[in-house]
Amino acid sequence: MAAKNIVIVGLGVGGFSALMAAKKISPTSHITIVERRNCDMFSSCGLPFVIEGIIPDPENLKHTLPTGSMGVEKLLLHELRSIDTGNKVIEVDDLATGTQKEIVYDSLILATGSEPFIPPIPGARELLGRGVYTLSSPEDTYTILEAASDKKHAVVMGAGPIGLEVAVALKAVGMDVVVVEMLEWAFPRAIDKDMASAVSNVLKSLGIRSMMGKAVEKVVGEDHIKAVEVGGETLDADLLVAASGVRADLSIVRDAGIEIGRFGITTNMGMMTNVKDIFAAGDSVEVTNPLSHRPWSSQLANSAFRQGTVAGTNAAGGYATYDGSLTTFVSVVGDLEVAATGFNSHFASMYGFNVVSGKAKGKTRPDWYPGGEDISVKVLADSSTGKLLGAQAVGRGAAARINVVAVALKSGLTVHELAEVELAYCPAVSETYDVLTKACDFAVRKLNK
Amino acid sequence: MAAKNIVIVGLGVGGFSALMAAKKISPTSHITIVERRNCDMFSSCGLPFVIEGIIPDPENLKHTLPTGSMGVEKLLLHELRSIDTGNKVIEVDDLATGTQKEIVYDSLILATGSEPFIPPIPGARELLGRGVYTLSSPEDTYTILEAASDKKHAVVMGAGPIGLEVAVALKAVGMDVVVVEMLEWAFPRAIDKDMASAVSNVLKSLGIRSMMGKAVEKVVGEDHIKAVEVGGETLDADLLVAASGVRADLSIVRDAGIEIGRFGITTNMGMMTNVKDIFAAGDSVEVTNPLSHRPWSSQLANSAFRQGTVAGTNAAGGYATYDGSLTTFVSVVGDLEVAATGFNSHFASMYGFNVVSGKAKGKTRPDWYPGGEDISVKVLADSSTGKLLGAQAVGRGAAARINVVAVALKSGLTVHELAEVELAYCPAVSETYDVLTKACDFAVRKLNK
Repeated sequence: MAAKNIVIVGLGVGGFSALMAAKKISPTSHITIVERRNCDMFSSCGLPFVIEGIIPDPENLKHTLPTGSMGVEKLLLHELRSIDTGNKVIEVDDLATGTQKEIVYDSLILATGSEPFIPPIPGARELLGRGVYTLSSPEDTYTILEAASDKKHAVVMGAGPIGLEVAVALKAVGMDVVVVEMLEWAFPRAIDKDMASAVSNVLKSLGIRSMMGKAVEKVVGEDHIKAVEVGGETLDADLLVAASGVRADLSIVRDAGIEIGRFGITTNMGMMTNVKDIFAAGDSVEVTNPLSHRPWSSQLANSAFRQGTVAGTNAAGGYATYDGSLTTFVSVVGDLEVAATGFNSHFASMYGFNVVSGKAKGKTRPDWYPGGEDISVKVLADSSTGKLLGAQAVGRGAAARINVVAVALKSGLTVHELAEVELAYCPAVSETYDVLTKACDFAVRKLNK
Repeated sequence: MAAKNIVIVGLGVGGFSALMAAKKISPTSHITIVERRNCDMFSSCGLPFVIEGIIPDPENLKHTLPTGSMGVEKLLLHELRSIDTGNKVIEVDDLATGTQKEIVYDSLILATGSEPFIPPIPGARELLGRGVYTLSSPEDTYTILEAASDKKHAVVMGAGPIGLEVAVALKAVGMDVVVVEMLEWAFPRAIDKDMASAVSNVLKSLGIRSMMGKAVEKVVGEDHIKAVEVGGETLDADLLVAASGVRADLSIVRDAGIEIGRFGITTNMGMMTNVKDIFAAGDSVEVTNPLSHRPWSSQLANSAFRQGTVAGTNAAGGYATYDGSLTTFVSVVGDLEVAATGFNSHFASMYGFNVVSGKAKGKTRPDWYPGGEDISVKVLADSSTGKLLGAQAVGRGAAARINVVAVALKSGLTVHELAEVELAYCPAVSETYDVLTKACDFAVRKLNK
C-alpha cells in the first residue's frame, strides 16, 4: 500500500500503541507525533508508587522512544491548535517559540488523553498549586512530595484507584490521611459495597480515615490550604490531592466538527470518528459497553493500548476492530489487590438487568499448604439467562480471577458455563476448588431455585 | 424427590465432590462410602511437598469428613469385590476382619482412582519396596524419607508433575538426583520442547541431572537397589521413585459389564456408565477432549472434582453435565511455575490440526516497577480458522494466564478474539501489554500472512 502521512496527537499509551501498530502495518509511512509535554512517554499508573517510594525516581517512569531510528518525527512541546478537516491539515503551537506551524496528514489520530478534574468546590480551584494538587505527571510527584515533606494533614478526594493509591502513599511517607468519597464506598464504579468492606479494613489497618458518602464542601485557606469542610466537619489540611476523575478537553475537536458523545469522541469499531481519516484512541473516546451495547467510558491504560493499536492499524491502511471495553481493572491498596470487570450491581441494575450474584471467600492455597492468602470473589449474572454481567475480587490473585471472567464476558458465557471450566491446580499455586468457581456455583444455585 | 440409597466407592477428590453434590441435591439420601484406605480423604498433590519439607507432616494432608453429622455411612478399610448390576448390590471385603458384606444401591458412583504404574523394566517390580518406590499415599512419604535419610543417589523416573516435584524435593533433602524421562523433554504431554527448556534450566541450576529421551533399562540390585541402567550408562542408585504415570485397575468394573474405553470407564455427559444408575468419576474414567471431540485422559484433581460433582448430582436425582477436560494443569519445579491447557504441538498435530503458534517472553510487572519476574507464554491456534488449540506458560503467573486461555478454549475463541480481551493492569500486578496478549498478537500476525 502507498506510504501515508500519519499524524498522532498525544504520546500517551494510546498514541504510543497507535505508533507501533502503524509502523508495523506500513513501515515506510511517515509518522509525526505532536506532544505538548517536554518528554516522551511516561507511565502515569506508576505515579502513586513514586510518591510511596516504591519507585525511587519519577524519571524511571519516562521512556524515550527511538523515534529517529524509526523514521518518526517527534514534536515535543507542541500543542494542537486546530484541525482543518477539509484540507487535512492541523495547526500546532510550538510552545517553546510561541510560533505556529501546519502539518498535513493523510490520517490523523487523536490521542490527547485527559486531565484531572477538579470539582467546582469553593476554594478548590482557587488554591490549586497552593496545597491543592492533582497527580498526572512525573513533575506532580515532586510537587506533592515537596508539599508533604514538612506537613502533617493530607486529604485525598476520591476513592478510586488513583485516590486510594495516593492515600496509601501519603500515609507511607508519614502523613495523617483522610480519604473523602462522595459515593458510599471505595471503587464505587467498579465493585459493590459488600466487597468494598475489605478495602475499608485495609485503610483502617493502615491508619487512614475514610469518609464515604461525603463530599468536600469547601476548601479553606487564603494563601495556602488550611482545612477542608466535609459533611459538616472541618478537617485540618495541609495538602489536598484531587483524584475525583479525569476529563478530556475536547473544544478543538468539537470545533473541527468531530462528533462527541456523552463520554467522549464517538468512533466506529475501527476507531474512526465521523470525519474520514480522523481516528481517536484513549481517555478522550467514548466506547461501547459489550454488556449493555450502550455508550460507556473506559479511561484505563489497557483500553487505550488496544484502541491505539486499532486506530494505528487502520490509519496506516490495515484492518482492525475494537469491540468495546469491559473496564477490566486492578488496583493495589496497601497489600490488598482489588480487581473487577464488567458491571457492578449498581450499573447492572441501571442498565436494566436483574442481577443474581454468587460470592465466595477462600484462600489462594489449600489450608494445609503454607503461605495461602485470603481472596474473595463475587460474580454477577443475569437472572433470566444466567449470562455473566461482571465480577469483583479482593485479595492476592484478584486480577488473575478477574481476567478469567473478562474472557468469559467477552465470550458471552453463562455463569454456569464458567463454573464448568477446570482451573489449574497445584497446592503451591491454587486450590482444587477455586474461589472463583465456588462463587459461580453459588450463583448457579440461586438461578436454579 | 424420593431419598435414594447412594453408594460411593473411593474417597478421593472425585468421591468427595460426589458426596458433597449428592448431599446438596438430596439432603435426606442415604450415602455409604466405601474406601479401602484406613483414612478419610487426603490431598495427594501435596505429597511431594511433604518430602521437600514445605508441609511439615503428611498427617496435615489428611482430612476427616464429619460423616456422622452428615448422615453418611463411612466404611474405611473396605474394598470393592464385585458389582451385581442386575440386583443393584455390591459386595465388599472388610479388610480388617477378612469378611464380606453386601451393600444395596439405588445409585452407585465408582471413584476408585488409580495407582502408580511401574513399567515392566527388569528389576523394577522385583525391588519394589526395597529401594524402588512410588508416591501415592501419606505413608509413602515416610517410606521415601526414611529410605533417603542416609543415602546419596536418587533416580526419578518420569518428568511429569509428580516426578519433577519429587526430584526437587529429594534434592532439597540432600540427595543427588537424576531425572530420567523416556520422551524428549519435561512435561512432554503438556508443553513443547522449546518451552521445556526453562524447566531444564531450573533443574540444572538446582543441580539435578536430567536425562531426557532415555529409558531406565534395568534396575540392578539383589536385596536392595544398587544401580539403574539408563541409555547404556550405569547410575548408582540407592533410591528409585517411579513417577511414570498412573493406571486404574478396572478388572471388577469390566467383570460387571461396565464399558471401558481406551483411557478408562466410558460415561455419557452425565458421568453415567453404560449401566443404568452406575456413575463414574476421577482418574478411572475416560473423558472427551473438547478440541478433538475424541476420547482423552485427564488424571487431574480439578477434573476429578468436576466429574464427581456431576456424578453426585445426577446420582442423587439432580441434573448436571460434564463437558470434557482440557487437562488444564500447573506444577511448580523449584521456583518455576509451569502451566498448560489444551493441546501442545505434538497432540495438536496428532489430532490433525495445522498449528500456528505465538510465543512471547515478558515480565510480570513493568521494567520500572521493582519485583517483576520472567514469564513466557506460547499459544497454539488452528491455522485455517484461528481457533485456539492450547497454551503453555512458564514463570510466575503461568497458571493465571493459562486459566484465561482455558476459558477461551471452552468458549471456542479464536486467538484473535483472545488478543482483544483487555487484561487488568496495575504496575504492582501486571504489564499494560501482557505477555499472553503479546503471544496471541504474534500468532495473529502469522495467521494474517
